[in-house]
Order: sequence, then structure tokens, then C-alpha cells
Amino acid sequence: MPFDEFTFLRWIRRRTRPSRRVSLGIGDDCAAIPLVGKGPLLVTTDMLVASVDFEPDATPARAVGRKAMAVNLSDVAAMGCEPGFAVSSIALPRGCPLAYARGIHRGLAERAEAFGVEVVGGDLSATPGPLVLNVALFAFARDLRPVPRSGARPGDVLLATGAFGGSILGRHLAFTPRVREAVALNRATRIRAMIDVSDGLAADLGHLLEESGVGAVLREEAVPIHPDAERLARTDGRTALHHALTDGEDFELLLAVAPRDVKRALAADLGGTPLRVLGEFTKKKGLWLAGAGRPPRRLRADGFRHVF
Amino acid sequence: MPFDEFTFLRWIRRRTRPSRRVSLGIGDDCAAIPLVGKGPLLVTTDMLVASVDFEPDATPARAVGRKAMAVNLSDVAAMGCEPGFAVSSIALPRGCPLAYARGIHRGLAERAEAFGVEVVGGDLSATPGPLVLNVALFAFARDLRPVPRSGARPGDVLLATGAFGGSILGRHLAFTPRVREAVALNRATRIRAMIDVSDGLAADLGHLLEESGVGAVLREEAVPIHPDAERLARTDGRTALHHALTDGEDFELLLAVAPRDVKRALAADLGGTPLRVLGEFTKKKGLWLAGAGRPPRRLRADGFRHVF
Repeated sequence: MPFDEFTFLRWIRRRTRPSRRVSLGIGDDCAAIPLVGKGPLLVTTDMLVASVDFEPDATPARAVGRKAMAVNLSDVAAMGCEPGFAVSSIALPRGCPLAYARGIHRGLAERAEAFGVEVVGGDLSATPGPLVLNVALFAFARDLRPVPRSGARPGDVLLATGAFGGSILGRHLAFTPRVREAVALNRATRIRAMIDVSDGLAADLGHLLEESGVGAVLREEAVPIHPDAERLARTDGRTALHHALTDGEDFELLLAVAPRDVKRALAADLGGTPLRVLGEFTKKKGLWLAGAGRPPRRLRADGFRHVF
Repeated sequence: MPFDEFTFLRWIRRRTRPSRRVSLGIGDDCAAIPLVGKGPLLVTTDMLVASVDFEPDATPARAVGRKAMAVNLSDVAAMGCEPGFAVSSIALPRGCPLAYARGIHRGLAERAEAFGVEVVGGDLSATPGPLVLNVALFAFARDLRPVPRSGARPGDVLLATGAFGGSILGRHLAFTPRVREAVALNRATRIRAMIDVSDGLAADLGHLLEESGVGAVLREEAVPIHPDAERLARTDGRTALHHALTDGEDFELLLAVAPRDVKRALAADLGGTPLRVLGEFTKKKGLWLAGAGRPPRRLRADGFRHVF
């Protein structure tokens, strides 16, 4: 049954109650949000494309909406701050059932709500191609210091939340962005640099190294390997370590902490999420993997990248 | 020649010099922007889809980039405020030449620069479908009062910038968003309500009426008809007035001003852009067209809407 954009927008609006944090919300040309605190405004944006970021036939609409919000939440987590507001844009394929469109919105809204984020506006378009879903997420840093990628120094310790590899088996849709963990760490100690892992452990660590102008040595036996990486390794002949280093979409955090602050970081209350030491940052550039009793070998910062 | 996302992102970054208005820009998980002024943060987002919002084969990449930025600038103009920062997301079709991708960025960047907007981040994806380009634009209102759609009252005068109809002949790609005009008007007098015309004069006026809970009478002879509407009328048998009322993508402003403030509005320096009285707002709901010597007839708030 065909439906028009205003039918869907009215439905969204009925389900959205603007809070007192917003002075103008959905239904105007812009949302208006009173400024909060002294810290800067943080902004990030991420786009999902059907058949690239998820399999449209195998993925419930709600999971698509959840992922679109969650990947943005993960970017704010990587700054050690708390997300606040979002706008979303959806290009719906013609013939898309209204129930599917509603499912997308429900997924977005439920992930937003779980992290205290208010969706204050958006855009809706039609497309002759695959579904595209964009979210832009905003946060007031308030009293929290935003953590850049660029602050790691030689001698700093490399830590990571969670475990890596095999997210394609389902976690890439169902992960919990590490917002609470990031804020707890940012309050517990000084984090010098941080990044979330979307392209892959090695690739995103590579980005952090590039921005910081340092290198790092990963201890092979310290890389936290997710059971999904082991499962995948049994089917494709690659090692679980290879999956952990290169798969991507783990949405865990990698962070640099000065040696004197490691104890405080490890003592932070992360609600059960593991935090582990993986290695250390070095003056010598490049990313190196040190195995027990073997000389360190250089890792290419391989990971997912779009090619056109 | 295939290229990968980091090649393109490095090229963008080399061309982008972060200003002192930004504490962290492209190259981090979020941009960080120090708060400015006391007024609220304004946020809007708009997505363009190839074959829906522009004809990909007939539209230079640069014009696509320009339009994507300009439609968002128009939304901030509709609030009577000055835009500040943007993030953009691009889904590029596989096989898209690097020159085309660069053209998109150049168009975005040149429109941004012309209006004092800094592009502080973005996302790049591949797509098996048409090109999709999303911009989220945000602005600090500072000392300007954001003008909502909802403030028009019975007896207020309806004014409009520019002229309407026939934008499909080329103006929909090349229009100048009415940012300067909007800010000049907002400084010159109190604007009760404002909207920019993307869906069509009648449709967007309808949105403003709905949000304000009022009606309006348009004087037929006062509707500013663009020469493009006349040209189109000669080819398709519809009247130029019909085109002016329903075509859309004029990106002119419709505003409500109290009778005592009309003189001040008309005296504002709009740099040559015409500002005209089109009619008035009424307690009686609905949108009415009053012709000379004929009883007013009710207009359906018709205009462009996506159907799925």
C-alpha cells in the first residue's frame, strides 16, 4: 500500500514528545536547542547503505535503525563524552512498506532513548536505489574533556574494552556502544587519546597512531579475541587473531593512558565490560605485533575501506 | 581508475584548513566546536538523491554539491539566523570517477565558504545505487531570535522574497539561499513566523498555517510570478500562477509580520532582493486565493511530496 511522506512524518511526530531540553523540535525548519555547559559542542555523522552496511533481506528494519544510531553513539563514546541530540535522514526505496519505514524509526528511537539522546529533526526522501540512512549526532561536552585521537605519547599504555573479531556473525548489528564505559574512564583518569573500532583493530589503531605521530607494539597474547572470531576461523582457515585484528565493526574502544594512570583506568566501574592492556605506544613509528619469543613483526594497518 | 576512501579523504583534508572557531575538526571521531553566544543551537539536515533531486547525467558534480549545501542554508535562513558549521555524508556509486567525487566536495565547500560555513567532518560510503549526499548544518543563534513556523497570528501580513514557479528550468540548482535577507529582516523588525519554500508556495504556506493554527488569504494579483513560470506555462498549458503556487524549490522566504512592522520589513536592506506583500493571515482556517472581483476560492495546499 503506497504511503506519502507526510503520513509517515505525522506518525513520527505523534510518537515524539519534545523535552524541555529543546525549544523548537520536529515541525520547524531547524531544531533549536539551548546551549548547555561550558565545554564544546561535539558533532559526528555516519551513513548506512543497504547491501553495504547490512543485508537488507536478512536484517529487520528495527536492527537497521538501531545500528544507524549506534555507530554514531560509538563516535561520541570515542570522545569520552555523552551524546545529546540527533537528526536523521532516510532515503526509502519506492515500494517500501510503511511497516518497514516505521521499524527503521523505532530502531533509531529506541537506541537514542537508551542513551538519553533526543531526535530533534530529520529529512525523508525517496530513492530508486537501496535504502540509505544518515544520522548526525550532537553532544555538549559540559564538564567532560573531549578526548582526541591525537594525544598518545611514547610510553603510554594501550588499553581496549571488550574483545575483537567476527562481528559479521551478528554483533555488527547488535553491539552496545561504549558510551557509559567511555564517560566512566574519562571521569576516572586522564585519557590521552581514544578511538572506536569500526574499520578494524589494526586499521583504527593505525589512525590513532597517525594522528598522534607515534607507533605501537601490540602483545600478541594480549589481543582479546572474541568467540565469534574463533567460530569464523574454524570455517575460513584464517586465524582467530587475524580476524580480531582486521574484521572491524567491533565498536570497542582503544585508548592511550599514561603509565601512572593505568591503575585508575583499570579500577573504573565499567559495568562489567572488560578493559585490558594490549601493549604500549612507542616513539618508533608503525604498528608492531610482538609474539612470545619471536621478534616483533610489522602489521599493515589493514581493515575495511570503501573502494570506488 | 578505482580509488579508495582514504585517498579521497586525504585530498579533502589537505584542502581544508580548520579555523580557530573549531577545536577539533576533520580527522577525529567528532568535531569539537566551542560554544558561542547565549542563543540556542540550530540544527537541520537535508538529503539529496540522484534521479530524485537532480538528473545525474545532466548535472555537473559541482552543482550537486552546491545544491546539497544550499538547501540546508535555506533552512537556517528560514529561522532568521546565520549558519555556522556543517557535516556531510556522501554515498558514492561504485565506479564513480575521482574527479566527480572531487567536484561534489568543491561544490559543497564553495557554497559553504560563501556563507561563512565551515565543514568540520563527514562520512564517505560506497553504494550499489544512486549517489546520495546528506548535509547536516548547525548554527549558533547568538543574539538573533530564531523565527519559528508557528508564530503567525490573524491580521498579520504575509510577505515573500523573490518570485515563484518554474525552478525546474535551472533555478533549483543555482538559487541563492536567502540567508542575508533573512538575517537583515530579523534584525530590522520582529518576524512572527517564517518558512522557506521547498515543496511549493501553497504547500509550505500550508505548513506555516498548520503550525500557527491560522488561515491566510493570498491576493492573486500579488503572487510574484517568476519568468520561468511564464516560460513553462507556454509549453505545458498550465497557468503561470499554477506554477508559481505549486512548483516548489524556489527557496524563497514566506514570512508573517504584524501590520505595524510591515514598513520596517519593507525598508530593510535586502541587497536588491524584492520583498512583497502577498496577502494576510486570518482566523478562518485554510488557504484562500482572492482574485479581483471574484469570491475567494480555497486552495489545496498542494506541492511536492514523496510517495513510497
